[in-house]
Amino acid sequence: MASLPADFFHPVSGMEMPRFAGLPTFMRLPHVTLADPIIDQVQLGLVGVPWDAGTTNRPGPRHGPRQLRDLSTMIRAGNPVTGINPFSMINCADLGDVAPNPVDIIDCMERISAFYADLKSRDIFALTVGGDHLVSLPVLRGLASDAPVGLIQFDSHTDLFDSYFGGNKYTHGTPFRRAIEEGLVDPKRMVQIGIRGTAYNIEDVEWGQAQGVRIIRIEEFFDRGVSDVMSEVREIVGDQPTYCTYDIDFVDPAFAPGTGTPEVGGPNSFQALQVVRELAGIQLVGADLVEVSPPFDTDGNTAWLGASILFEMLCVSAEAISRR
Amino acid sequence: MASLPADFFHPVSGMEMPRFAGLPTFMRLPHVTLADPIIDQVQLGLVGVPWDAGTTNRPGPRHGPRQLRDLSTMIRAGNPVTGINPFSMINCADLGDVAPNPVDIIDCMERISAFYADLKSRDIFALTVGGDHLVSLPVLRGLASDAPVGLIQFDSHTDLFDSYFGGNKYTHGTPFRRAIEEGLVDPKRMVQIGIRGTAYNIEDVEWGQAQGVRIIRIEEFFDRGVSDVMSEVREIVGDQPTYCTYDIDFVDPAFAPGTGTPEVGGPNSFQALQVVRELAGIQLVGADLVEVSPPFDTDGNTAWLGASILFEMLCVSAEAISRR
Amino acid sequence: MASLPADFFHPVSGMEMPRFAGLPTFMRLPHVTLADPIIDQVQLGLVGVPWDAGTTNRPGPRHGPRQLRDLSTMIRAGNPVTGINPFSMINCADLGDVAPNPVDIIDCMERISAFYADLKSRDIFALTVGGDHLVSLPVLRGLASDAPVGLIQFDSHTDLFDSYFGGNKYTHGTPFRRAIEEGLVDPKRMVQIGIRGTAYNIEDVEWGQAQGVRIIRIEEFFDRGVSDVMSEVREIVGDQPTYCTYDIDFVDPAFAPGTGTPEVGGPNSFQALQVVRELAGIQLVGADLVEVSPPFDTDGNTAWLGASILFEMLCVSAEAISRR
Amino acid sequence: MASLPADFFHPVSGMEMPRFAGLPTFMRLPHVTLADPIIDQVQLGLVGVPWDAGTTNRPGPRHGPRQLRDLSTMIRAGNPVTGINPFSMINCADLGDVAPNPVDIIDCMERISAFYADLKSRDIFALTVGGDHLVSLPVLRGLASDAPVGLIQFDSHTDLFDSYFGGNKYTHGTPFRRAIEEGLVDPKRMVQIGIRGTAYNIEDVEWGQAQGVRIIRIEEFFDRGVSDVMSEVREIVGDQPTYCTYDIDFVDPAFAPGTGTPEVGGPNSFQALQVVRELAGIQLVGADLVEVSPPFDTDGNTAWLGASILFEMLCVSAEAISRR
Amino acid sequence: MASLPADFFHPVSGMEMPRFAGLPTFMRLPHVTLADPIIDQVQLGLVGVPWDAGTTNRPGPRHGPRQLRDLSTMIRAGNPVTGINPFSMINCADLGDVAPNPVDIIDCMERISAFYADLKSRDIFALTVGGDHLVSLPVLRGLASDAPVGLIQFDSHTDLFDSYFGGNKYTHGTPFRRAIEEGLVDPKRMVQIGIRGTAYNIEDVEWGQAQGVRIIRIEEFFDRGVSDVMSEVREIVGDQPTYCTYDIDFVDPAFAPGTGTPEVGGPNSFQALQVVRELAGIQLVGADLVEVSPPFDTDGNTAWLGASILFEMLCVSAEAISRR
Amino acid sequence: MASLPADFFHPVSGMEMPRFAGLPTFMRLPHVTLADPIIDQVQLGLVGVPWDAGTTNRPGPRHGPRQLRDLSTMIRAGNPVTGINPFSMINCADLGDVAPNPVDIIDCMERISAFYADLKSRDIFALTVGGDHLVSLPVLRGLASDAPVGLIQFDSHTDLFDSYFGGNKYTHGTPFRRAIEEGLVDPKRMVQIGIRGTAYNIEDVEWGQAQGVRIIRIEEFFDRGVSDVMSEVREIVGDQPTYCTYDIDFVDPAFAPGTGTPEVGGPNSFQALQVVRELAGIQLVGADLVEVSPPFDTDGNTAWLGASILFEMLCVSAEAISRR
Repeated sequence: MASLPADFFHPVSGMEMPRFAGLPTFMRLPHVTLADPIIDQVQLGLVGVPWDAGTTNRPGPRHGPRQLRDLSTMIRAGNPVTGINPFSMINCADLGDVAPNPVDIIDCMERISAFYADLKSRDIFALTVGGDHLVSLPVLRGLASDAPVGLIQFDSHTDLFDSYFGGNKYTHGTPFRRAIEEGLVDPKRMVQIGIRGTAYNIEDVEWGQAQGVRIIRIEEFFDRGVSDVMSEVREIVGDQPTYCTYDIDFVDPAFAPGTGTPEVGGPNSFQALQVVRELAGIQLVGADLVEVSPPFDTDGNTAWLGASILFEMLCVSAEAISRR
Repeated sequence: MASLPADFFHPVSGMEMPRFAGLPTFMRLPHVTLADPIIDQVQLGLVGVPWDAGTTNRPGPRHGPRQLRDLSTMIRAGNPVTGINPFSMINCADLGDVAPNPVDIIDCMERISAFYADLKSRDIFALTVGGDHLVSLPVLRGLASDAPVGLIQFDSHTDLFDSYFGGNKYTHGTPFRRAIEEGLVDPKRMVQIGIRGTAYNIEDVEWGQAQGVRIIRIEEFFDRGVSDVMSEVREIVGDQPTYCTYDIDFVDPAFAPGTGTPEVGGPNSFQALQVVRELAGIQLVGADLVEVSPPFDTDGNTAWLGASILFEMLCVSAEAISRR
Repeated sequence: MASLPADFFHPVSGMEMPRFAGLPTFMRLPHVTLADPIIDQVQLGLVGVPWDAGTTNRPGPRHGPRQLRDLSTMIRAGNPVTGINPFSMINCADLGDVAPNPVDIIDCMERISAFYADLKSRDIFALTVGGDHLVSLPVLRGLASDAPVGLIQFDSHTDLFDSYFGGNKYTHGTPFRRAIEEGLVDPKRMVQIGIRGTAYNIEDVEWGQAQGVRIIRIEEFFDRGVSDVMSEVREIVGDQPTYCTYDIDFVDPAFAPGTGTPEVGGPNSFQALQVVRELAGIQLVGADLVEVSPPFDTDGNTAWLGASILFEMLCVSAEAISRR
Repeated sequence: MASLPADFFHPVSGMEMPRFAGLPTFMRLPHVTLADPIIDQVQLGLVGVPWDAGTTNRPGPRHGPRQLRDLSTMIRAGNPVTGINPFSMINCADLGDVAPNPVDIIDCMERISAFYADLKSRDIFALTVGGDHLVSLPVLRGLASDAPVGLIQFDSHTDLFDSYFGGNKYTHGTPFRRAIEEGLVDPKRMVQIGIRGTAYNIEDVEWGQAQGVRIIRIEEFFDRGVSDVMSEVREIVGDQPTYCTYDIDFVDPAFAPGTGTPEVGGPNSFQALQVVRELAGIQLVGADLVEVSPPFDTDGNTAWLGASILFEMLCVSAEAISRR
Repeated sequence: MASLPADFFHPVSGMEMPRFAGLPTFMRLPHVTLADPIIDQVQLGLVGVPWDAGTTNRPGPRHGPRQLRDLSTMIRAGNPVTGINPFSMINCADLGDVAPNPVDIIDCMERISAFYADLKSRDIFALTVGGDHLVSLPVLRGLASDAPVGLIQFDSHTDLFDSYFGGNKYTHGTPFRRAIEEGLVDPKRMVQIGIRGTAYNIEDVEWGQAQGVRIIRIEEFFDRGVSDVMSEVREIVGDQPTYCTYDIDFVDPAFAPGTGTPEVGGPNSFQALQVVRELAGIQLVGADLVEVSPPFDTDGNTAWLGASILFEMLCVSAEAISRR
Repeated sequence: MASLPADFFHPVSGMEMPRFAGLPTFMRLPHVTLADPIIDQVQLGLVGVPWDAGTTNRPGPRHGPRQLRDLSTMIRAGNPVTGINPFSMINCADLGDVAPNPVDIIDCMERISAFYADLKSRDIFALTVGGDHLVSLPVLRGLASDAPVGLIQFDSHTDLFDSYFGGNKYTHGTPFRRAIEEGLVDPKRMVQIGIRGTAYNIEDVEWGQAQGVRIIRIEEFFDRGVSDVMSEVREIVGDQPTYCTYDIDFVDPAFAPGTGTPEVGGPNSFQALQVVRELAGIQLVGADLVEVSPPFDTDGNTAWLGASILFEMLCVSAEAISRR
């Protein structure tokens, strides 16, 4: 292992290998599998979960990891806004995809949970690329098996429904109901930002609020502004372990058309990055970006925005890891 | 008729029939034709007018109603922002399309006017889905035959020109000149919001202002903000019968690319909804959404924004109907 | 019922209502639900099954029925090649969609089977629009509960695999293995046409041939020509009840790009229609068209070809029904 | 005029000015207007007629001339198949577009007829680029005012209907009914090749055949082959003046998706060129290519095929002109 | 020359020739070549430079001029915001494209420089349409051969890098490093607005700042607002000759997806126009718009925004020319 | 190395890891770099050359390798037509991309030649994925340094021109002129199949034929059929070392729209595969597929056809390697 080149965990530079060239890994990082001895040196792993079997509407997020790898090759090494150079702080790698089962929800959730439990046992921070929002549930089962975590959710939907289609408990509209019920998430330390769109009913909102979840609708978000809202967010989750889940439909569909259940009237791309930068200082234990759906992303700019969000997530995660 | 199920006039829920399934009617409402006895119970009808023969530039809005039906199947039942559940307030239905004549402007305008005169005689509120902006003229002929109405127009163009191509009086650039001339609209109670873009000349603006039309350009709109502008709008139209016409090119083309004559530098999608919510309290007698052009709507998000606007229109219309 | 207009079961003419106008039903036929008394007069029902939960690769066919309804509005009333005017022979209607469950394969297959058993009990011939190829299995369970039927399968894949992903028995790659095992299809009266593409292994082919299935690869198809091949097909199924399943990936992807698992080197669109015309005389008891995937159908021409194929299927079905 | 450079009427070479550069004129020919003295030296003019007001279905051909100019910049100077170098034989130019009136059918037809009568008076051969198929009627009015011409029509539809929508005589489905009625075309010297698709009724076919029009359906075309069919075509029109009209929907939509009323099961692109080459020897007096609809031409290849067909038309026209 | 019609240098009106018709020149202006005697009357020339050989990432801007000509046909004659009617102030023309050499960077830069030196010698103001950003370097070589000019750069990247791929000095990431080194631009009178995105390193920024370049990052731009920032810009360049270069990737990719190296989190389309209007009063000696890449501009709205920006540039340029 | 799993050189099965999942390598083979000791076991390497700096027209092939990797994940392990299971015959791997220099033609050709000379020295058979057609020249320089090879070229253009744009010797229209001049290819053992399209002049054809190159135009190809033509091809190259280059524009653009210089009237996809299968028995020493241009490949089916062609190439190459 000593023989790894000094820049092994650094992205390939686009000034040497043009950005359109080379095999597309997340941010041009090395691909390291769990079976590879190098895995022991990895501190943060980008993991794809190409799975959308929980989608109740328009499918596609199963293609998300591949397209995000492709577009992420345009990410460079440093963050001039925050001054963070994450790849100099920690060892990052692309851990590949969890092998999904597209036709069996229960089996696939077990596969995912097992993968993340393994990562947790290796003390590797996981930055997950979905997949639809049901992905977050088995990830949390893997990561939060010991104690409930706080949850910061950027989203236009609560995903707190009880069931669909006459009783189905596992869909991309239910993961956080389950996560609270299973004790994976502490609803008192849970906050949702950006909620909007028409509603079947308010059962989800009422249930969530009854558990203690703080729901910040988009009108409040625009009224107060990013800084003020995010201050409250940091206060809610405090200094305990916290997971961040980012549904790309949080962003307005003009900026992120490539998603299955878009809601108009959302934040722009600058705000989409700002909210992640405001996670600095939180004790993150994992994060995900979900619901990027390439079939609806006609020009690839949703994936490009997603890759840019992932990079901001990686920066705040690198800080959190370094602080440990 | 007594045997209609209790939820007959309610949209099919996406939690029972997934939103991608089933025949696409506007907002998953029942399809009721004028020949159907159930029509007597309808209070608000969504009507398609798939016609773009007045288009001077890039055609396509004839395909608008079908695509808007398709995307509107993602609309749910309630409006969490205003707290309105329109389908619980009034009986709504999809009345189908007016049979257009794509090759004969005069004949087609007569068909449309006759249809709307019939609706008026039945006291059914019409929410119209175009079609290009010439559609508004025959609709107004049908609805405003008794007395001129006030007019609120969201648009990037005045559509107040006199004629095109050497004398043609009926195009999508002239409907409101005709409507004022014909006494269908009271220019003193008429206001246009969002006007922008380059200009052939200022003949349209000067004529309109000479009649008393209030023209609020986009620079003023951005300077003053939605609330202030809409207060003035409500004052201009007062408490008399008022029609609202919404040209999708009011919105910036990043949010609504699917239209034939886009003008950059417009409102975002949040503002696109806000202005409709601010119509609360106005005595609406009809409304339309026009110029959605599917051939230019490469990812369907223009139609999705259009459907979201239609839902907001339906909410304020339901209130207006309930107040009668 | 006596009051139904004489042309009730006839498509709306595009010379009266332009083809881009009106609510899109299959071939502009009336929409009749099972709850409607008119259902008793229906002899052939077009049924949508918007479901692709069995898809192992790229999803999308759940959107098939809606897009096929849309494009099928360009179909007119008569078949100049065969001289058949199906709508004058039998009463046809659009029966809407089976309400699918996108997140529960077993539940959804039960829903579908129940729907088709109902149709069978009403003696309504079902022309099914998928959905992925797993749809054919529950359809056959509904239709072939009494005795095994013959099967004519146009496809580039055998769909005779045993299981995927470590044991999953129900995917779009397995329906006819199951159908044979369950006694729904008589493998001696089963024929597959157009098989091609690379192969994982030949387990599917060997198993099928061992049961007696006749597999006509594309090379043989091109060598012998449509007439000769289809003569053999008619001989294989004989004059007993036979079901026809048509996977759009039978056709070359230049003509039908909108599908999830295309295989190059297939028939052209003329041959795609010819093979259906050659079903004349067979005792059809049902037919389906599956795997049209709108997200991959960038210009709608796959759906247009699909609609054209459906019309040819409807013509031979009308004959079969008339002969009874 | 003596000062015109020797290569004035020759296309700009892509080896000097790359084909993506420069203002797009038809085949990179000089743009010469009727007001320009150089017009006296022009023998063949390419003319755009960007007009689709006669379209009964999906609009778009008004954008045809511009897109065809764009793609035609990839055409080079010689025809290796026939050995013809048309630009060395005759002086060709791009005459620009007839100024259309998109909202007035009668006025626009008069504009077009006047333009072509002018060309005829100047003895300039016109190669027309539509526009929809109604364009051919005013062109014929301009060119065939003296005596009826023969007509060769490549098309999937007869365009011989009497009227649409309750009496409209001028649509893209009626031009040749009018042309025969007006004595512009001699039906005994008229032949249609490629007819197919579903039918409203057979009124068009019966009327045409009663006048003496020879209708060669696609089945006959495929059975006999290009050579045999085109021999008959040449015999039908004989050595008298003949016009050729080419509707791009003659070609299978896999090769020409960009059109408003496609019919599957048509010729491929090789045959699409072959039939034009087989016009050699005919006394052509004009030709057009119509119904290329850019909004449906997602990758530009329909326009590219159209440009290739135009070049073949130009080659046989150059021969016909040279023979005079 | 006396015989030129009075409106020779005015755009063709869309009320006479519809905007989709006619050969597409920039803003429907006359096409005048350098060889044409009329050139002596031209004061401002729009010039296409269809060249992207300096592109290090995703190519396409070579197609920019043609697409911008196409979309610019929707521009009308007057600017209602500023009250400027540029075509009444000065004589404008489309000068065509510089013939590029796509396979030889040095040769092509010489071609471009020679063309602009010629324009300078004729005292024709050049408004350039790229092409990638390397285009600006040879343009400046042609225009600023006498003395360094001030530079206003709207961009998300500094384009101040030294070299790529092991020593290549000429790419679209290096033009302004070269321009400063060559004394074409006075770095003390140079300002960059909108810089953002991830970074390889900060070598470019440090070098630029060391030369005196003022770099205004996007965060500062949003904090201070357009007016305040542009006041500083005007102060920096003062009243000496100044060139303006506008990289379309300055704008957020939701508004301008059609570019090769987009960076999310940028200005909207209203701000994109505002910054140009704020150039009023500056002594402009030339301007360009670069990096519009049609292959990534799926709906043409990037080119439409680009055309709108070009019109605003043309308005402030007309003023600057008139002031001379 | 002994510890490599038995299936190390076998593609990942889509029945275990769904085909949309996992990092996309060519045909899901292992990624092995030249620096990896495993390289010694590789017999055939798939190599990407993402470079299109020689493109004279519409760029894009630099994106080819990445898109072909993506689509090639749908290739399975065996070839049912020929019975070949290449991955069981030889050890195959994805060797990644040659690092291209997009802005320096000479430098980049040296990089490529060096890479291939290295492969040759290691006795690894290279299957190359372009890139534009200029790629073939440096590949041949690397592989054919000892003695000229035979050449089989599937193409619609000869690529035998001398120079472009006033003297540029290296473009995608000149590689085989150079290869013959440099003694890399024996023109007596060189054959081109599928040539068609309009022509600047016949200088290329005349020069080639003078050297002894056999040029089979598309008309001859269609007249004689695949078998007859390919018999002649095999005779021409004989049993000496031969290279095969396949320009995707050999295929008709309906089947392969994603290329920069398409020519209509070409072979279909079945013939596109057949011609490769007919290479069985030839002593191949290398092969490439070039000119797949993702920006023009709107639905990915060009890349899918390309991947299918690559698989057939791999099968005949595996045989050739096994015979050694």
